[in-house]
Amino acid sequence: MANQKTLSAEEMGKAMREVSVAEFFEKNRHLLGYENPTKALVTILKEIVDNSLDACDEAGILPNMKITIKELETKVMYNVGDDLGEVIIQERKPILKIKDRFAKLEETKKTDDKIEYFYSAGGKNYTVTETKVEDEKVYKISSNGQELKLMKVPLGRFRIIGEDNGPGIISKNVTLAFGKLLYGSKFHRLRQSRGTQGIGISGAILYSQLTTGKPAKIVSKTEKEITDVEMRIDVSKNLAQVLSQDITKNKEGKTGLVVEMEAEARYIERGQSVLEFLKQTAIANPHAKITYDGPGGKIVFERATNDLPKQPKEIKPHPYGVEVGILTRLLLTTSSKNLLHFLTNDFSKIGKSSAHEIIKVSKIDSRTKPNSLKHEDIEKLYRAMQTVKIPSPPTDVLSPMGENFLVEGLKKEIEADNFVAVSRPPTVYRGNPFQVEVGLAYGGKLPRDQTAQLIRFANKVPLLYHQSDCATFEAASDVDWKRYGITQSSGSLPQGPILILIHFASVWVPYTSEGKQAIADYPEIIKEIKLAIQDAGRKLSHYIHEQTHLREGQLRKEIFEKYIPELAESLEKLTDENKQKIISELEKIIKKGVSTGKQDRDKKES
Amino acid sequence: MANQKTLSAEEMGKAMREVSVAEFFEKNRHLLGYENPTKALVTILKEIVDNSLDACDEAGILPNMKITIKELETKVMYNVGDDLGEVIIQERKPILKIKDRFAKLEETKKTDDKIEYFYSAGGKNYTVTETKVEDEKVYKISSNGQELKLMKVPLGRFRIIGEDNGPGIISKNVTLAFGKLLYGSKFHRLRQSRGTQGIGISGAILYSQLTTGKPAKIVSKTEKEITDVEMRIDVSKNLAQVLSQDITKNKEGKTGLVVEMEAEARYIERGQSVLEFLKQTAIANPHAKITYDGPGGKIVFERATNDLPKQPKEIKPHPYGVEVGILTRLLLTTSSKNLLHFLTNDFSKIGKSSAHEIIKVSKIDSRTKPNSLKHEDIEKLYRAMQTVKIPSPPTDVLSPMGENFLVEGLKKEIEADNFVAVSRPPTVYRGNPFQVEVGLAYGGKLPRDQTAQLIRFANKVPLLYHQSDCATFEAASDVDWKRYGITQSSGSLPQGPILILIHFASVWVPYTSEGKQAIADYPEIIKEIKLAIQDAGRKLSHYIHEQTHLREGQLRKEIFEKYIPELAESLEKLTDENKQKIISELEKIIKKGVSTGKQDRDKKES
Repeated sequence: MANQKTLSAEEMGKAMREVSVAEFFEKNRHLLGYENPTKALVTILKEIVDNSLDACDEAGILPNMKITIKELETKVMYNVGDDLGEVIIQERKPILKIKDRFAKLEETKKTDDKIEYFYSAGGKNYTVTETKVEDEKVYKISSNGQELKLMKVPLGRFRIIGEDNGPGIISKNVTLAFGKLLYGSKFHRLRQSRGTQGIGISGAILYSQLTTGKPAKIVSKTEKEITDVEMRIDVSKNLAQVLSQDITKNKEGKTGLVVEMEAEARYIERGQSVLEFLKQTAIANPHAKITYDGPGGKIVFERATNDLPKQPKEIKPHPYGVEVGILTRLLLTTSSKNLLHFLTNDFSKIGKSSAHEIIKVSKIDSRTKPNSLKHEDIEKLYRAMQTVKIPSPPTDVLSPMGENFLVEGLKKEIEADNFVAVSRPPTVYRGNPFQVEVGLAYGGKLPRDQTAQLIRFANKVPLLYHQSDCATFEAASDVDWKRYGITQSSGSLPQGPILILIHFASVWVPYTSEGKQAIADYPEIIKEIKLAIQDAGRKLSHYIHEQTHLREGQLRKEIFEKYIPELAESLEKLTDENKQKIISELEKIIKKGVSTGKQDRDKKES
Repeated sequence: MANQKTLSAEEMGKAMREVSVAEFFEKNRHLLGYENPTKALVTILKEIVDNSLDACDEAGILPNMKITIKELETKVMYNVGDDLGEVIIQERKPILKIKDRFAKLEETKKTDDKIEYFYSAGGKNYTVTETKVEDEKVYKISSNGQELKLMKVPLGRFRIIGEDNGPGIISKNVTLAFGKLLYGSKFHRLRQSRGTQGIGISGAILYSQLTTGKPAKIVSKTEKEITDVEMRIDVSKNLAQVLSQDITKNKEGKTGLVVEMEAEARYIERGQSVLEFLKQTAIANPHAKITYDGPGGKIVFERATNDLPKQPKEIKPHPYGVEVGILTRLLLTTSSKNLLHFLTNDFSKIGKSSAHEIIKVSKIDSRTKPNSLKHEDIEKLYRAMQTVKIPSPPTDVLSPMGENFLVEGLKKEIEADNFVAVSRPPTVYRGNPFQVEVGLAYGGKLPRDQTAQLIRFANKVPLLYHQSDCATFEAASDVDWKRYGITQSSGSLPQGPILILIHFASVWVPYTSEGKQAIADYPEIIKEIKLAIQDAGRKLSHYIHEQTHLREGQLRKEIFEKYIPELAESLEKLTDENKQKIISELEKIIKKGVSTGKQDRDKKES
């Protein structure tokens, strides 16, 4: 203890200071979805697409997006030794330069785990062995069995460009929207939208400059003006550092936004990938046209409808679940003159009679000024608001996918025999209206011996990561699927040819992290998702039981058929009737029996 | 589309504004660990304990903490109807008051799912039925079969008090430390500590005021002064709103901190609970004395050692993994005069020769001013830093638990037959030194037919939640345990009588959320945890194979013993020797045989 340096309260005090939000997320880039290079690329794309779709929806424009992802040439030089020369890795392929002259590539050998390049130069032989370790490529150069140099080649670097036909962003806001974290128009309102936090796109730029040091480029065209900006984020100030800005009149009148950045990343085409994200986005947003130009070629997701989705409405908080702390702040900041006014004006679904009831239960004078309530009265008011019966939030406030569309969307992408969908009416958690939709696909080409696939959406945005941490997963694992005729080990997702799609729509989605990949497990949310799954499960179970019934009938028929010849022989002896005639009679019975069984069942059900 | 309200770029622009960090986390309280009332209580406790232990460690004080958790009386009144009277729920028990007189409780019936209270008043009978729905209790009052009222009783409310003997916080910092999120002394340095973000304790106060509206109380005693504060957080400004503040001289000289707050929460004693958190904290911090006074009684976790743990050191970033963006900022803000200086001064483990090597590879003049480097040069410098061989971070910079202590800690708490532990040397991710330790307990009373228990620590803080989202879980599931003689379904934690303890110590722990319950899966981290588990697995496998060998020997012995009487009889006939003598000879052989088998094996191993 004696030789350890300890600090006094004063010394500790001197070290205390504010942390900028940008610094915080730079150090915690994984919170925003940038913990690995594959996910980083998906996250950047997601932030660009979410913003474009939100802006188009709000402006009432049918979205037309273009996404370009281009792998950039990486050229890295390594000194092999003064007298030897250098290795240049260009687009991940090695070029050997010995004493300022390029060596000759004699042979390339490719095996499962490595590639060997054999060179000759100045009468000597050199070998460069390429292997892959984690996300990096490692090159070893050797000559005559002697290792000369080990080189790691950095991750791929990509240029990502997002282009839309949205309304654009006005000049004075461009550098704030892209250069400041926790800044935006969506946080302080209660309205269903893809983005809400004011972190996403500036977070993407933060990651871009962190890994490449390169500035971002933005061109924003509103009806009036065109803003052309090149900028970085000043991390310690959480503000844009503008390198160039050019504002001109928009003579053409076409509006839209172009965002361009470079980042270290990794491109894959299967599983949790850019392609999967776009495919699922297209399922949930059939009104959007998305042209994707990536390393694997060009893909166009065509518009499936020209109808804009129903606009979600901005609403006031519902009284159920609003916390005391929020109620206190609402009381202090309201412009309502008295308590009665406050209740009917500042909340959703409190009418005059509910307001009077709340006031009666809480025993506070209805003429009291909201900001003069003491803490005890606020608590009484709070309790009363939770006790009095208040209608559910309005059904038209959210923008769900809808049952028909869910089934159509699934049919388009999934080859299965049966599809069902359920849209639950809106309900509330913490004062926030939300709505759960579930679609199930069953049978067909879905794999029979695997765990069910779960496809998740929040406000029409696909969630690709952190499935096991998501309320949808918890709820789906907690449902008793055996009731609906589906195999399940308890506490797990069901087994068999089933696909589960869950859409969570809300004015505020409680994501488990700023990277927005999983929904937090608030008890009210879990409960509602389970109810939706159970509704859908019941719908599906008719079909499954029908299938089981048919299969059993078929089995009975097969067994019976086996014994027909034997039986016919016995009957022939007993009745003197012709055996072939008996067989054909028996076969008729079987046919009738199976179809009658079905008719009986149909009658019973209706 | 025509009747939907759409917005122009100008209208959208007007709605854009800054979001305060406190507002952000109030709305996203689940990010801080407050998504359900059970976890909320654990999180508040965790924030208090982490801060106290950090402050004591830094000041070189043996921690002596007292934690008090007290359930408060909840008294809620419900009007049953003007002429009837009211129901008072006091400490969650109903009291019925009819026309201002208390009704008589005649009978209480308790079943598994409900409690019925039967009352009489004014010749009438009333029944109150209590049921539990999710986290709430619901009371239904009825009279003569007619339902009169449904009442929900809120969650429990608790007062939480944390008291320590640390150095205290100087007056001018108290309201900042407790009333401002993203403020602290630990973020801007690289040094292993429990807290880092400057969010934890102010987040706890945020949740407290959100659910109860009550202010927090803080008494801070430094050697010089005593600061006594009552405060709230002004959420829209992210600043303390001080209700009262009193600063006096500290005449006694005793230092320490008392934090007191009230919050809605739920108290449990098993599983992911306050008790489990304290128990695991005691395992990892044997130098701390913690007195816990909770709803279930008083428990003292006594100090197991009077030695303070090794102080971790504040260090500079290691060049490996430092991103281009960070390097750029370091170059711009350094006080070093030239590049050579910058490399040797601003990084850990770059000596003069490494610096010269880096400069040579990057082909930049060593006398260049750091802030004058162009972007292309920064990239070259970055590549060179990643290529040149630089020693691992110093081994004394972190404060691990240590192999001996890990085994002792496990032995104290777990009844098992064999214990092994491994402390890996420090390594680096993103420029941050980190170190992984693994302890394994095997056999004994550990359950044989269950999945292994995983106990996780980050910088000596127990992690109780989000296990499946944690790098430790991913790594432990990815290890091939069958190699060490342990059962496992591929991709899962092993099965059988095994407990896995993993400690991750780092100057910066990359948590998956601000609630700090799981470690993000950076590839370098996963790799290192796997290596640590494999080291420990190999150590354990000797014991397991030994056990298997002994068991097999035992089996052979048992089979042989079965045939002894028969064999003895045959031998008696052949040799005329006495049967009993033969049996005892044979038994000697068996004894020797088994022990010899062991000796042979021991010889072979050494």
